[in-house]
Amino acid sequence: MFTGLSAFPLTPLIQDTVDEKAFAALIDRLAAAEVHSIGVLGSTGSYMYLDREERRRTVELAVRQAQGVPVMAGIGALRTRDVLRLADDAQRAGAAAVLLAPVSYQPLTDEEVYALYAQVSRHLSVPLCVYDNPRTTRFAFGDELHARIAELPQVRSVKLPGVPDDAAQARVRVEALRALLPDAMRIGVSGDRLGAAGLLAGCDVWYSVLGGLFPTACLDIVRSAQAGDAEKALRLSAELAPIWALFERHGSVRAAAAIAIRQGWMDASGLPLPLKPAALPEIRHIAPLLDRLG
Amino acid sequence: MFTGLSAFPLTPLIQDTVDEKAFAALIDRLAAAEVHSIGVLGSTGSYMYLDREERRRTVELAVRQAQGVPVMAGIGALRTRDVLRLADDAQRAGAAAVLLAPVSYQPLTDEEVYALYAQVSRHLSVPLCVYDNPRTTRFAFGDELHARIAELPQVRSVKLPGVPDDAAQARVRVEALRALLPDAMRIGVSGDRLGAAGLLAGCDVWYSVLGGLFPTACLDIVRSAQAGDAEKALRLSAELAPIWALFERHGSVRAAAAIAIRQGWMDASGLPLPLKPAALPEIRHIAPLLDRLG
Repeated sequence: MFTGLSAFPLTPLIQDTVDEKAFAALIDRLAAAEVHSIGVLGSTGSYMYLDREERRRTVELAVRQAQGVPVMAGIGALRTRDVLRLADDAQRAGAAAVLLAPVSYQPLTDEEVYALYAQVSRHLSVPLCVYDNPRTTRFAFGDELHARIAELPQVRSVKLPGVPDDAAQARVRVEALRALLPDAMRIGVSGDRLGAAGLLAGCDVWYSVLGGLFPTACLDIVRSAQAGDAEKALRLSAELAPIWALFERHGSVRAAAAIAIRQGWMDASGLPLPLKPAALPEIRHIAPLLDRLG
Repeated sequence: MFTGLSAFPLTPLIQDTVDEKAFAALIDRLAAAEVHSIGVLGSTGSYMYLDREERRRTVELAVRQAQGVPVMAGIGALRTRDVLRLADDAQRAGAAAVLLAPVSYQPLTDEEVYALYAQVSRHLSVPLCVYDNPRTTRFAFGDELHARIAELPQVRSVKLPGVPDDAAQARVRVEALRALLPDAMRIGVSGDRLGAAGLLAGCDVWYSVLGGLFPTACLDIVRSAQAGDAEKALRLSAELAPIWALFERHGSVRAAAAIAIRQGWMDASGLPLPLKPAALPEIRHIAPLLDRLG
């Protein structure tokens, strides 16, 4: 489950409720492209903005539409009680794995984060992916903590926020982390502009926002990297540079939303307020690229 | 309403549910001490960890126990839809004011934050206090944004995260901000170790965590500052230095919880997991100080 391309779709809203039709259509595209897994309710899927029923329903819909592609569901919440409830809901709805970030309001200590993963992992019957995203959680994992958490039951993957830009340094980084983790742990890269670099550096899986919009283009990158064609993987990724710049400037959820709105896949009110999509004039500049991808 | 001592109590839990008896007893202490206002569901009151019904009930209980002392309620949430619902609930429960922080998961832009305050303030019939707390919200207000938000209807106070340590610099800071804000705006200081300094620098109100535990000691500081006795206000504050150090080291909510547990005012399971109170051995070191205050 934790290999290849894991595509992270938006959860489109329309007038402040989940647009189930638009969401189902996004999942259809991913299933048709045969991505290796689908990660619903990630940061791009607005999980922290949706209530329990919206999240339950979203997982249920994704599993129904995914045509057998395994679905991983984000279960992060500020309070452990709520994480446990969301874990139950996701498992009942058919999620094949769960994704858990140490979301915080009060900055968390290492001990608090370890205890959270210990309690949740004991409670699970499906695999768990550790979601390391300091930009949104404001928690910085150290490698020692990653190694301790990786020993817990059900913990099978880690979603890293990126790898170093330099190829040699990226490989050193991934190898150093792998040496600390149990063999069964699958290492994933995110931060889409680093997807190709991460896979070439030895990551097992690319947890990808753009994969949730343009799965075929991202699968081309994954297949090139897996075949050892570094030159092609990096060239395909570099062709998407205007999109990576947009992600960088506005955050990937706002950029992905602006693209989905432009493509007609999501209503203009598709993000949960107070979040607003990136401004459309910027999207117009990359219209030819989007037309080719879409 | 936005003057003097605004005391911010904990919301004690017991085995993961709100301990209404313990909470009512905390409010009783504040009402008996005649604090100028009570700020429930602040960061110390764990607002971001409680669900809508827990929050509604907490405001209701506070208003009932407050013996006429005005109650301000935190209404922050990640999603604007939820902020509006919490505003309705707080007003119906009798809150005299609301406190709103630009809570984030995805880091917010200035425009998103302004639009949030604009939408919520239009919706309110009670005054609003802008909660500027970059440590928990990860949003950094600029003065220009403070000034724009202060022009919105119902916006009447701002809760600053602190003032400069140096007395002259603190006064310059408060005067510079006041010059940008409408006359009716009340400027509040928080970060308890800076309470005395803030009042002496010209702040109207001290939004105080320790005030939620030891209102009498904090009122002594406020009255000294208001009477212009800077020496006494600063001396009283300095006597609490071991407590400020504990706040600094563990975050004020964990320190306040450890104190409340030690005083027998809250169960050891009083914070919402994954949060844990500061370790009790550290509290033992300041036992004589706590005995004197309690």
